[in-house]
Amino acid sequence: MKTELIINKGKSKVDVARRAYGFDEIALVPGSRTCDLELCDVSFQLAEHKFDLPILASAMDSVVDAKVAGALGKLGGLAVINLQGLQTRYENVDEAYEKVTSCDDKSFIEVMQKLYAAPVKEELVAQRIAEIVATGVKAAGSVTPNMAAKLGPIAQNAGCNIIFVQSTVTGIEHKSADGHGQLDLTKFCRESKVPVVVGNCVAYQTCLELMETGVAGILVGVGPGAACTSRSVLGIGVPMATAISDCKAAADLYKSKHGKAPAIIADGGMVVGGDICKAIACGADAVMIGSPLAKAHEAPGRGYHWGMATPSPVLPRGTRIKVGRTGPLAEILFGPAHTDDGSMNLIGALKTSMSTLGAMSLDEMKEVEVVIAPSILTEGKVFQKAQHLGMGR
Amino acid sequence: MKTELIINKGKSKVDVARRAYGFDEIALVPGSRTCDLELCDVSFQLAEHKFDLPILASAMDSVVDAKVAGALGKLGGLAVINLQGLQTRYENVDEAYEKVTSCDDKSFIEVMQKLYAAPVKEELVAQRIAEIVATGVKAAGSVTPNMAAKLGPIAQNAGCNIIFVQSTVTGIEHKSADGHGQLDLTKFCRESKVPVVVGNCVAYQTCLELMETGVAGILVGVGPGAACTSRSVLGIGVPMATAISDCKAAADLYKSKHGKAPAIIADGGMVVGGDICKAIACGADAVMIGSPLAKAHEAPGRGYHWGMATPSPVLPRGTRIKVGRTGPLAEILFGPAHTDDGSMNLIGALKTSMSTLGAMSLDEMKEVEVVIAPSILTEGKVFQKAQHLGMGR
Amino acid sequence: MKTELIINKGKSKVDVARRAYGFDEIALVPGSRTCDLELCDVSFQLAEHKFDLPILASAMDSVVDAKVAGALGKLGGLAVINLQGLQTRYENVDEAYEKVTSCDDKSFIEVMQKLYAAPVKEELVAQRIAEIVATGVKAAGSVTPNMAAKLGPIAQNAGCNIIFVQSTVTGIEHKSADGHGQLDLTKFCRESKVPVVVGNCVAYQTCLELMETGVAGILVGVGPGAACTSRSVLGIGVPMATAISDCKAAADLYKSKHGKAPAIIADGGMVVGGDICKAIACGADAVMIGSPLAKAHEAPGRGYHWGMATPSPVLPRGTRIKVGRTGPLAEILFGPAHTDDGSMNLIGALKTSMSTLGAMSLDEMKEVEVVIAPSILTEGKVFQKAQHLGMGR
Amino acid sequence: MKTELIINKGKSKVDVARRAYGFDEIALVPGSRTCDLELCDVSFQLAEHKFDLPILASAMDSVVDAKVAGALGKLGGLAVINLQGLQTRYENVDEAYEKVTSCDDKSFIEVMQKLYAAPVKEELVAQRIAEIVATGVKAAGSVTPNMAAKLGPIAQNAGCNIIFVQSTVTGIEHKSADGHGQLDLTKFCRESKVPVVVGNCVAYQTCLELMETGVAGILVGVGPGAACTSRSVLGIGVPMATAISDCKAAADLYKSKHGKAPAIIADGGMVVGGDICKAIACGADAVMIGSPLAKAHEAPGRGYHWGMATPSPVLPRGTRIKVGRTGPLAEILFGPAHTDDGSMNLIGALKTSMSTLGAMSLDEMKEVEVVIAPSILTEGKVFQKAQHLGMGR
Repeated sequence: MKTELIINKGKSKVDVARRAYGFDEIALVPGSRTCDLELCDVSFQLAEHKFDLPILASAMDSVVDAKVAGALGKLGGLAVINLQGLQTRYENVDEAYEKVTSCDDKSFIEVMQKLYAAPVKEELVAQRIAEIVATGVKAAGSVTPNMAAKLGPIAQNAGCNIIFVQSTVTGIEHKSADGHGQLDLTKFCRESKVPVVVGNCVAYQTCLELMETGVAGILVGVGPGAACTSRSVLGIGVPMATAISDCKAAADLYKSKHGKAPAIIADGGMVVGGDICKAIACGADAVMIGSPLAKAHEAPGRGYHWGMATPSPVLPRGTRIKVGRTGPLAEILFGPAHTDDGSMNLIGALKTSMSTLGAMSLDEMKEVEVVIAPSILTEGKVFQKAQHLGMGR
Repeated sequence: MKTELIINKGKSKVDVARRAYGFDEIALVPGSRTCDLELCDVSFQLAEHKFDLPILASAMDSVVDAKVAGALGKLGGLAVINLQGLQTRYENVDEAYEKVTSCDDKSFIEVMQKLYAAPVKEELVAQRIAEIVATGVKAAGSVTPNMAAKLGPIAQNAGCNIIFVQSTVTGIEHKSADGHGQLDLTKFCRESKVPVVVGNCVAYQTCLELMETGVAGILVGVGPGAACTSRSVLGIGVPMATAISDCKAAADLYKSKHGKAPAIIADGGMVVGGDICKAIACGADAVMIGSPLAKAHEAPGRGYHWGMATPSPVLPRGTRIKVGRTGPLAEILFGPAHTDDGSMNLIGALKTSMSTLGAMSLDEMKEVEVVIAPSILTEGKVFQKAQHLGMGR
Repeated sequence: MKTELIINKGKSKVDVARRAYGFDEIALVPGSRTCDLELCDVSFQLAEHKFDLPILASAMDSVVDAKVAGALGKLGGLAVINLQGLQTRYENVDEAYEKVTSCDDKSFIEVMQKLYAAPVKEELVAQRIAEIVATGVKAAGSVTPNMAAKLGPIAQNAGCNIIFVQSTVTGIEHKSADGHGQLDLTKFCRESKVPVVVGNCVAYQTCLELMETGVAGILVGVGPGAACTSRSVLGIGVPMATAISDCKAAADLYKSKHGKAPAIIADGGMVVGGDICKAIACGADAVMIGSPLAKAHEAPGRGYHWGMATPSPVLPRGTRIKVGRTGPLAEILFGPAHTDDGSMNLIGALKTSMSTLGAMSLDEMKEVEVVIAPSILTEGKVFQKAQHLGMGR
Repeated sequence: MKTELIINKGKSKVDVARRAYGFDEIALVPGSRTCDLELCDVSFQLAEHKFDLPILASAMDSVVDAKVAGALGKLGGLAVINLQGLQTRYENVDEAYEKVTSCDDKSFIEVMQKLYAAPVKEELVAQRIAEIVATGVKAAGSVTPNMAAKLGPIAQNAGCNIIFVQSTVTGIEHKSADGHGQLDLTKFCRESKVPVVVGNCVAYQTCLELMETGVAGILVGVGPGAACTSRSVLGIGVPMATAISDCKAAADLYKSKHGKAPAIIADGGMVVGGDICKAIACGADAVMIGSPLAKAHEAPGRGYHWGMATPSPVLPRGTRIKVGRTGPLAEILFGPAHTDDGSMNLIGALKTSMSTLGAMSLDEMKEVEVVIAPSILTEGKVFQKAQHLGMGR
């Protein structure tokens, strides 16, 4: 068997595929500079709005309602309410949440499929935004591209300050079956009275094209979320470190041409403080997080977290995770942490990381060196931990 | 100890070996284009036969009998019956299945070795094909190379529409001990009244050579199946993403010379919808799946799945897996899914993936970008999951 | 979807990031030379002090008190006492240890936060050093950069032979909020009556800059320790094999200019004898270890081990590990080992490794070949071990 | 923080270290040729001795006694007796085995340390060899380098056909403390009346140098055995696929100069049939296996297996594994297999692999293509298996 015959060696599609990296595969490298924590500025600018914290709460029913939006806004972040979820389908939304969180593991998919089959009510879209506005903070709502033209203006009229147009994947070109219903993003942005954030995307080229439409921010991330199973169900997903880094490169190119660029918002897959630090070091201007905030006392999910593809009538992809309720929102963001797992005092972690790395602003944090250092499970580690967890003898 | 002495550095066989990738190591990258799910055409052409779905059921006793063949054919796919399995060894095949599925874990190897020692009956070969034909769908049967000349014509005369000639590995050159018994594949294809599909292979060069024999399709995959232990027993196996991608490259070369090429059918190792999406993105025209269909209510395996090398009298390599029965075949293919693990609504998953990736045909799906992104187990993940599963405290 | 569009391929930040390796990812390669164990000299020079063993005990409350310092010093190593831990906050330190080690897993963070809130007493700094001096061995104490100017002289006056200035990350430039309080390391070294060791760092350039300040040694390692969760909480950390190897390269450059270089001391992440062997093979002159010594009968931690960031009032990052008490210090260093896991007879392991590799001094050990050989968990291994541990049936 | 400062990027020791691969990281690639199993010749030549099987039993007390040597010899392989183990320390060796295998997990290290403290008796060396000779097969015994000059001639006079000189690592140059006791391997080979096999080594250059001494075979492998913990205790070890492949390259060079080369014998780390297939495909002429044969009914270890470094008085490194007793030696080698895990019918597996790969001799097997294809644990797999094993719910 001559190996010379194998003339294709290294030339097929997979051989030339690029390696993409996730948060668990990178680490930040401290260098020669450090600074006091008090000097670390973590403020974040989204169009004309400035936020003290680079933290957005995901537009997920388990994470955001008007109460959370008010609380997070006062703490310095921005919560985005899902305008096509339970909040806008049910006036008595408490009852709906009760159903989702009280059913057992076997029936929850069916329960959710039934609950989410109810229609979105336009008056509730306006009402929920108004409820947020009433708390005195900036209001942000999320709609899908095919509903954006209809629900966007309603939200804006109710006082919504920022509109999020969000689907699993959003590109500039969508072929629809009936020829209608495609959102012209450029037109939508131009006509919108408020800044538009769009997503999600993961690719350099797509990010660049989306920036040309006039959006104020881009959500980066497909498939990495804790409540998301897109990768196993659809085969789709780009690990976050690479996705953010690519979109940051697109933003850099855009900025070199236009003087400034839309904000890059990392969305999904961040569980502990270290993940947020890494997202920003890879190039994100801010992060949108779900499961860490679903643990807040104030979270509407009552200690549960679920993805927005979970209630899909035909292809549920996502699950309901019991995350528990570890503390009030303020403690999750600013501590003091009662746990040592990195899930509390996220801003403290970010500032501590920045001070250790000598980064006094988020922009300086983006300059920090990154190394590929997979936290792979080695033989030793897994059984040390297994024993620690009480598995085995 | 001078390191200059190590003059061989990087020149031994393993150093120049190529890296091969499996489904768990790749992911699909969404880009700038999306489309409505209704626009996604998943039809598949095999010689003169067109199928609505790119789904073939494996020629395994736990997966296919005449009833399943009829049901799958009506849904748009193609089930291949094993013409040298229980179906053609036992007239009263129910009794044989009862024995396989009722014995305990310790005795099943021996029980199967005994059951599969019975001879294949030629009249049953004809009868099983006739039973499939009677359901009104296209009939396909699988034979091993050494039995092809004998059983192939019997099957064709009984109305078999496509013949599968299948062994663990099939190449163009086989040295036999007695000088007889080698199948001349070129002659077999020429004389066959129906299209011939051959397999399995994994290498570029072999795939190219097999194409020259006149086959209508090539089965790609050695060792990846759920019920297969070839890799640990024989050391043999090429991860599927690389194997498919290589054979696709061979098909491209063949097509550039001959205008068209045999179909590339990925066989084995696909468990969830995402795996099927990846197989096609790597270059497969269709997929042959076993364990996902063994879970169907209609499957003859009664909630069990086993490989065809399991009953080997001297070297059983494979196992019997309890897969359960999750729903009727129609639900496994088209949903609605009751589970969120990607094992149901496989066609829904494929179409959702295609629409998310903007691929309106399987050929467009093959153009999608692939990244290397191993879903490795990291420290964090394994213990999150372990706790989720109720392991440890 | 044209792939030509993806013009950024391989050019974003993560793509050009360097791969860093940990101890679990490397192995040492035996060659043509071996020697008798008796010929292996493991002595280590730190400024004017020579130690029989290249073993330093970490400045952690669970590892070092005056008694341990005396015992380890007599055995040939050097224990570094934490001058800002329990020892210098409590006169009756036994009571404090009792509280840390008797509380349950849920309350220990809070218990520790409270205990470590007590102020450091200057008279106890002097007293603890004096206690060590009284045992007849060399005394070493550790202070943080911001307390170095104040506590350093007190320790020196009490007879401290070597001062360790230690924080998570120490670089040459620190921006402080009030403009005061930054330690001028060059000045501190110049004015110090005793050699100064500084740390921790992981980067080549930083190591080089720190060397220029006149230090006698550099602690290398951020985030790898057994009781440390810096990596998940802060995202920061460089795997040890790369960190040591980089700092060794810096030392080589420094030495080529100045004739000699400060000692490189690997700090953290070494659990078994093999880790110590690898640290030295990567270029360390000595190792600083915590958890292996916390297991000693003499250790003040009473069978527990905890990191110095654990009691942080706002961001506890670290945990309390029950390590048990496996034997007296002498047995942990010189055996005989009663266990086969590599945690006892650390010096025996080092000498056996050196003799097997033909290295008769630590400098020769640094010349040994290293290969990248991750001890990844493969399918086979994990379940062999799982069964061995009594997990599963 | 300018990244230009990081001038060392990629230039430190670890960065230029070579990647080494283990059996679990490679797979064999089937191609265009297959052959009947009956055509596969697995015979192996060691100096003037021809063996039907390329199987050597490890010189370990749990694996080989005179009875096993007789049985394996008659089946076509070669068992090597440890001339410095229990067999030559105790006349009534049964009693010694009883002690090793009846004690509990906590005490076995101490029990073994005590048992192996008894002196080796020269008359028993002669007697054990004579017992093997009496069974009518070729006798082979193993001695350590420092005892070779003394015990080698005794064994030869008793009829030993092949002498194995074996230590963890054997190179051509050994520095001893007293200047005496170093074995001159060239002289030993020249004076030996029978062929000498030496080991273990892993490096290209060392292998080449050992070949020059006149040995008939080289044992390749340091640290990979099932009962060996050299890697974690000493940090030493080269994964087998790379080690074998390197030594094969050395043999090729040697052969190109001298016309023929000593046999390359892979030693350790082979658990299933696939590992043996891979060892030969990487370039081994034969394999030396321990744990697979320790499971034989005839094995003296009574269902237990332990390494020869386990009873070290000061640094036990190795463990006692309960391997069970799965069948007679003949079944382990030739089947029929009652299990499907690859641990039985090793020769059947090798021949099946060869026939599938179209290799009709071991030399042809060495030409087979190898790919890097780590069987890493992915998220999906680990929990499928965990559930299969009854872990979790």
